[in-house]
Amino acid sequence: MPLFDTHRALLEGALDALATRGHWTPFPESPSPKVYGETGQADGQAAVNALLGKDFALQQPGEQGRLATERSPYGVALDVRYPDCDVQALVEAAQAAEPAWQALGAQGRVGVLLEALVRIHRRSHEIAHAVMLTTGQGPMMAFQAGGPHAQDRALEAIAYAWKAMADVPGQALWDKPQGKSPSLVMQKHYEIVGRGIALVVGCATFPTWNTYPGLFAALATGNPVIVKPHPNAVLPAAISVNILREVLAEQGLDPNTVTLALSPRPESTQALATHSAVASIDFTGSNQFGRWLIDNARQARVYAEMAGVNTVIIESTDQYAALLRNLAFTLSLYSGQMCTTTQNILVPRGGITTDEGHKSFEQVGADLAAAVTELASNPRVATSVLGAVGSPETVARMQQAAGKGRLVLASRALPHPEFANAQIHTPVIVALEQADSAIYSEECFGPVSYLVATDSGAASLQVAEATLRAHGALTLGVYSTDRAYIDAAIALGRRTRVALSINLTQGVFVNQSASFSDYHATGGNPAANASYTNLAFVADRFVIVQRREHVAAAPAAA
Amino acid sequence: MPLFDTHRALLEGALDALATRGHWTPFPESPSPKVYGETGQADGQAAVNALLGKDFALQQPGEQGRLATERSPYGVALDVRYPDCDVQALVEAAQAAEPAWQALGAQGRVGVLLEALVRIHRRSHEIAHAVMLTTGQGPMMAFQAGGPHAQDRALEAIAYAWKAMADVPGQALWDKPQGKSPSLVMQKHYEIVGRGIALVVGCATFPTWNTYPGLFAALATGNPVIVKPHPNAVLPAAISVNILREVLAEQGLDPNTVTLALSPRPESTQALATHSAVASIDFTGSNQFGRWLIDNARQARVYAEMAGVNTVIIESTDQYAALLRNLAFTLSLYSGQMCTTTQNILVPRGGITTDEGHKSFEQVGADLAAAVTELASNPRVATSVLGAVGSPETVARMQQAAGKGRLVLASRALPHPEFANAQIHTPVIVALEQADSAIYSEECFGPVSYLVATDSGAASLQVAEATLRAHGALTLGVYSTDRAYIDAAIALGRRTRVALSINLTQGVFVNQSASFSDYHATGGNPAANASYTNLAFVADRFVIVQRREHVAAAPAAA
Repeated sequence: MPLFDTHRALLEGALDALATRGHWTPFPESPSPKVYGETGQADGQAAVNALLGKDFALQQPGEQGRLATERSPYGVALDVRYPDCDVQALVEAAQAAEPAWQALGAQGRVGVLLEALVRIHRRSHEIAHAVMLTTGQGPMMAFQAGGPHAQDRALEAIAYAWKAMADVPGQALWDKPQGKSPSLVMQKHYEIVGRGIALVVGCATFPTWNTYPGLFAALATGNPVIVKPHPNAVLPAAISVNILREVLAEQGLDPNTVTLALSPRPESTQALATHSAVASIDFTGSNQFGRWLIDNARQARVYAEMAGVNTVIIESTDQYAALLRNLAFTLSLYSGQMCTTTQNILVPRGGITTDEGHKSFEQVGADLAAAVTELASNPRVATSVLGAVGSPETVARMQQAAGKGRLVLASRALPHPEFANAQIHTPVIVALEQADSAIYSEECFGPVSYLVATDSGAASLQVAEATLRAHGALTLGVYSTDRAYIDAAIALGRRTRVALSINLTQGVFVNQSASFSDYHATGGNPAANASYTNLAFVADRFVIVQRREHVAAAPAAA
Repeated sequence: MPLFDTHRALLEGALDALATRGHWTPFPESPSPKVYGETGQADGQAAVNALLGKDFALQQPGEQGRLATERSPYGVALDVRYPDCDVQALVEAAQAAEPAWQALGAQGRVGVLLEALVRIHRRSHEIAHAVMLTTGQGPMMAFQAGGPHAQDRALEAIAYAWKAMADVPGQALWDKPQGKSPSLVMQKHYEIVGRGIALVVGCATFPTWNTYPGLFAALATGNPVIVKPHPNAVLPAAISVNILREVLAEQGLDPNTVTLALSPRPESTQALATHSAVASIDFTGSNQFGRWLIDNARQARVYAEMAGVNTVIIESTDQYAALLRNLAFTLSLYSGQMCTTTQNILVPRGGITTDEGHKSFEQVGADLAAAVTELASNPRVATSVLGAVGSPETVARMQQAAGKGRLVLASRALPHPEFANAQIHTPVIVALEQADSAIYSEECFGPVSYLVATDSGAASLQVAEATLRAHGALTLGVYSTDRAYIDAAIALGRRTRVALSINLTQGVFVNQSASFSDYHATGGNPAANASYTNLAFVADRFVIVQRREHVAAAPAAA
């Protein structure tokens, strides 16, 4: 297993980090020329630009034609033409690839995957630029979340898969004493066998960060994978799949162990998801399609990350200005298009106590609006933080949301210094009443936040609990100087199974999740049924098939 | 955690055994007076007899009355009256018990459960007698499978749960360098939180062996449990639940962390299974109800062990007599009422090569029939091995099966020296043709085996593959002197995800599964979606709820 040995230190570093969960990464998040090369960024951008308007170099079975499906939120013409392959041909190719991939064993597979991951890492700038152009993320976020942070999540998945597989010994000698008779002795073998074809369905916003965990977890545990990216964010997935196929081919393995399904027609995605050979589905996206998968792809284990109603509770603070800056950044980052972005901000109608004195509900809203406005006032910072809005539906949702309550902060369209047709919009903040739960308990994807006036700090906890129980969440934040109140929020997080961030006032944001330390989603509320990454995310992706036989002739059965 | 420390060596022994998977048990399977006390057996039987005809001493919320539902296959009047509790009251009691059980933490819970398990162990003879009377098992099997072997499976579940929970550190200090600025430092806590109420549905045949894994796995991972035994095998579960409740109460915990739901009406079981508060269901029983649960209890994770079509392939042998004795014992043990008992025996129509010369298909049938008959000819051995047939439906199925092909061995009703009304029936063997797949691909629960004449050894593999793919199996056996044929059977087991036993001719039987060494069911074929026991059986029974906060004042966010 030469590749396993090559990357053993990387794996062991990840295993150590996951056991201790302090800060760790082998993939630096700074796009520094010292790390990624003096010409790294320019080379990456050039590599992507060279792909535009052409057939993407991916040869797969069952190609029926070529299709370009991507529309850049930056207004850049992409026109990369991907193979549109017959779903049944991809399934059969995956089935043909399966036995050799399984026979390679855990060490062999992990070695191949770590090699591919290291190559993906070397191409971080290229993948980042593909992420930026397809998703609308700002360049720094596209680099970090699309590059090293996504690679971290991939490495986590590989490491957990390794841990779960290493729990199963390859063989055992079973020697059972029989009193004065000779022992019963059996040789037993235990094989890790993947469940079958894994389908990994990507989303429009994080085409690597949300795709890699399922992709690498499924592959590591012995399953061939079909990656079905979102039609608007194919390129980052296609580059990643190509790298995997390249490493597979070099190792004499079947590149069809991983394929890309463009699947532009809903009916072909549905056919693929419900195919009897598809044993697992990793999905990130809307509750609507997530529920459809759970309800209809009954032959498969579905790992779904959907959407919830992320909430921040503000009861009091001793760092008012820092609270506002922190929250303003959260609301602005990638124009609120993260599955972890706060939607509901619960503030008592009577206001809050702060280090700057009492602040009325209205004042909190005005100050938060000012903080967002200030952040957006520097065009360079604004465009970098906000990125572009991915879809016209999101722009429409912003416009509708503005009319749902008292407008605290109106959205403004901003010009982009570089991309004339980019869709840049500052966030909307709308004030609601506690009674408006029909509005705020529904997810409103995009840069829309509701500042909800609650009856009291205690009422905020109740509102949050009702919303989280019914709709779930990926993130929950609380601001309070009262330890008893924080303890109540901790208990709330435990009951509703939502991760909690307490008094974030520094450079950590409620919508950010650090690999090797933060579990992303608990998997225990309606927003997601699985977590990045824990043992449950990997342990059921394979089964253990044992065999046993006597090792020595012994007296026959009585 | 005094109980954890008390039982630490037991847990560590189990963890070591599971990692190496050789023979190991802390619970001796021999009912020897030296181990279980000179009066152990008599005391156990007396304890059970003292329960008969009375109200069972179990006080639970929502009692609506008392019910006796058990009918002994040995014809013994049982009439133990159990509380019939309102399902909603049991759910609410479990919810009330949940927070304290979770707050106890992994060590606390594991300590309590190991203490209860050790007490269950001390009452092995009592539980064994309850198992025997309710299920019809022979006394030795009732002791072993109902006592120490079931306790082994419980310990496995606790140990795996411990392993999965120990993978999550309680807390971490996350310290992220920020170049020349002060580090970002956060204290993070990670809590194990059970998914919610676990329902454990028992079966009529193995009321402890098949109930303990889910019961102890769910409890260990922080979930309150409602045990719903089969109406005909309540007593062993009731005694076990009572012991758990006793230990809980002693520890100042809520005994309603574990309750017994008699639930004699199908509609109340269905209401319980689909209750929104029920987060997981462990089920052993028919495919029909298992599928119903999977299709209808959509709010819960379902761990289902159902039935498949267990198969033995006979291609050739160099130990013909031992093969026959081994197989005859398998078919006879507990009158074929094990979920692991062989149903289809595939033999080439042209016969097989053996160490006693060529044997025609007919001869193999005659010799197997003779081996079964010989085993049953000793009344003491026969009744001990066969036990009693649990239900009139099974007797009817035997009678119908006899007419489905050429009768190779007819069933005989045997008298029992001790129990005049016991239902004792020797196994039926029916010869079929390969073309009769409509008959042999359907599970026929009970002492019915089909000897299927296949076109060839290669055809046997094909028949087995087709049957196992469509219906699954818990066990697969192969007899061959040809290593290439065995390799083909190994590949078949891998493809169909069924455990394989090769050339069993000694005191190990295809229908037996040794804890700490054999994985029972792979969870990868239609017969079962989970395995006793691996990480997948425990890892998704809890979620990890984290919280994070800054530990030191630092410059506010930029």
